Amino acid sequence: MNILIIGLGLIGGSFCKTLSKKTNHNIFGYDKDNITSQKALNDGSIISVLSPEKFIQADVTFICLHPTVSINFLKENVSHFRGNSVIADVCGVKGSISAQMSEITMSHNINYIGTHPMAGREFGGYDYSVENLFDNASFIVTPTESTDMESLETVKKIATEMGFKKIITASPENHDKTIAYTSQLAHIVSSAYVKSPSIENESGFTAGSFQDMTRIATLNENMWSDLFMQNQKPLLNELDTLISNLAKYREAIADSDADKLTELLREGRIIKERDLSIYSNRK
Amino acid sequence: MNILIIGLGLIGGSFCKTLSKKTNHNIFGYDKDNITSQKALNDGSIISVLSPEKFIQADVTFICLHPTVSINFLKENVSHFRGNSVIADVCGVKGSISAQMSEITMSHNINYIGTHPMAGREFGGYDYSVENLFDNASFIVTPTESTDMESLETVKKIATEMGFKKIITASPENHDKTIAYTSQLAHIVSSAYVKSPSIENESGFTAGSFQDMTRIATLNENMWSDLFMQNQKPLLNELDTLISNLAKYREAIADSDADKLTELLREGRIIKERDLSIYSNRK
Repeated sequence: MNILIIGLGLIGGSFCKTLSKKTNHNIFGYDKDNITSQKALNDGSIISVLSPEKFIQADVTFICLHPTVSINFLKENVSHFRGNSVIADVCGVKGSISAQMSEITMSHNINYIGTHPMAGREFGGYDYSVENLFDNASFIVTPTESTDMESLETVKKIATEMGFKKIITASPENHDKTIAYTSQLAHIVSSAYVKSPSIENESGFTAGSFQDMTRIATLNENMWSDLFMQNQKPLLNELDTLISNLAKYREAIADSDADKLTELLREGRIIKERDLSIYSNRK
Repeated sequence: MNILIIGLGLIGGSFCKTLSKKTNHNIFGYDKDNITSQKALNDGSIISVLSPEKFIQADVTFICLHPTVSINFLKENVSHFRGNSVIADVCGVKGSISAQMSEITMSHNINYIGTHPMAGREFGGYDYSVENLFDNASFIVTPTESTDMESLETVKKIATEMGFKKIITASPENHDKTIAYTSQLAHIVSSAYVKSPSIENESGFTAGSFQDMTRIATLNENMWSDLFMQNQKPLLNELDTLISNLAKYREAIADSDADKLTELLREGRIIKERDLSIYSNRK
């Protein structure tokens, strides 16, 4: 099969490296930056760079660009793709993105599959891409009623070949609601956490909690701002929940109410222990 | 030297195991729970259990109990210790604890040293204690004007022998102010983070951010409530700073102000990158 990866950043580059290493498919690449394409060619991650007029060669294409850029790219280039071929995106939000991509591809008889490979690093770009980024990661697919089932199976099969640990199916809406909590909120907390003047003195005063809490503050602000704006409602809901919960701890401390504070902490511990036990059971 | 460890939980147990493995001192232990003391004796982490009437044998004692329990224990048992011996605590807050311990010991001519070994695990108790808990960790000492310098050097030397990576000196007040940010706030955020109903669906929807954010929610609520209450003012200050910063992101998202949101994220990235670069320079 001819697989085309568009956008050779952290995710796209890792797709190329993983597919080349673990499968026998022909892996093609495209990046607007020629230097990046050349790197992928030189290190053997792709067999060839395809310019848009050659996209017709691709059986399956993964568009690995930022959300809004993905939409714009597809709009401009959809006529280059072969009818009945498969196009998947890998954006971290699915609702609005999937709806738009679905509409654009449908009129050209192209089969669109929404996916979200649940992997990342705190730094982006091709230079950080690796062939084992997806080991132990989940691959989420978000089919809708209009999704072509054969194309869905093709994409799932590729993900399995790449070494994803499990394939998860969710509706675009449920995906976005959950991701607002497990990933987006965490990025905002990390970013907000580093903004205390006390960060100047952190050296030597942490056993790991501070690092865990702030690791992802190095996020790419353009991509994440785009993702957040595509998922406003669920994200606002999670932010409000967190802020209101933090306010409860604040109140207990301000009131010197040790019993209340202990109870709040106890509740949190029990929830987390249950989460861990569910996690270990499903391993 | 005869070193006595009082309280054989995660920290006290790890002190015994590390000291026995890495130094030639005679390590004694005491725990109110006989089964725990026997475990430490059986696995060779201590050479003997000392009952309070034998505390007089100790040249240096580390009290490894929760903050309020440490104070109460010392009050009840201070007469058992040898005059001119050294007593150190390992509590995660120093201001009020150090002042009280200093006062109790001074009247018995005992030299008090406030310390905070910056290490921990997300689970407590002797069974989780290990001989390498302090590798690469900081050992903070918080001397005041009344501190005996010779005793301070003795305790620092022991910490060095145990393999702590660096010894940091701070005033009790500066220690508490910084720890409110680097550790205490992180524990509250973790505990509050797990309280979204969305946690029910987290399985497969995270690439690590969720785990990093919630790892320490399994905290011991009694110890941490005690620590937080001993450090109300700095902790409230950090909580207010974080909540007010989170509100800025919330507002930008609610206002659909992508530029503002990008700017907030950019600021956070730059602060974190600077923190990382300072960190790598001081390595």
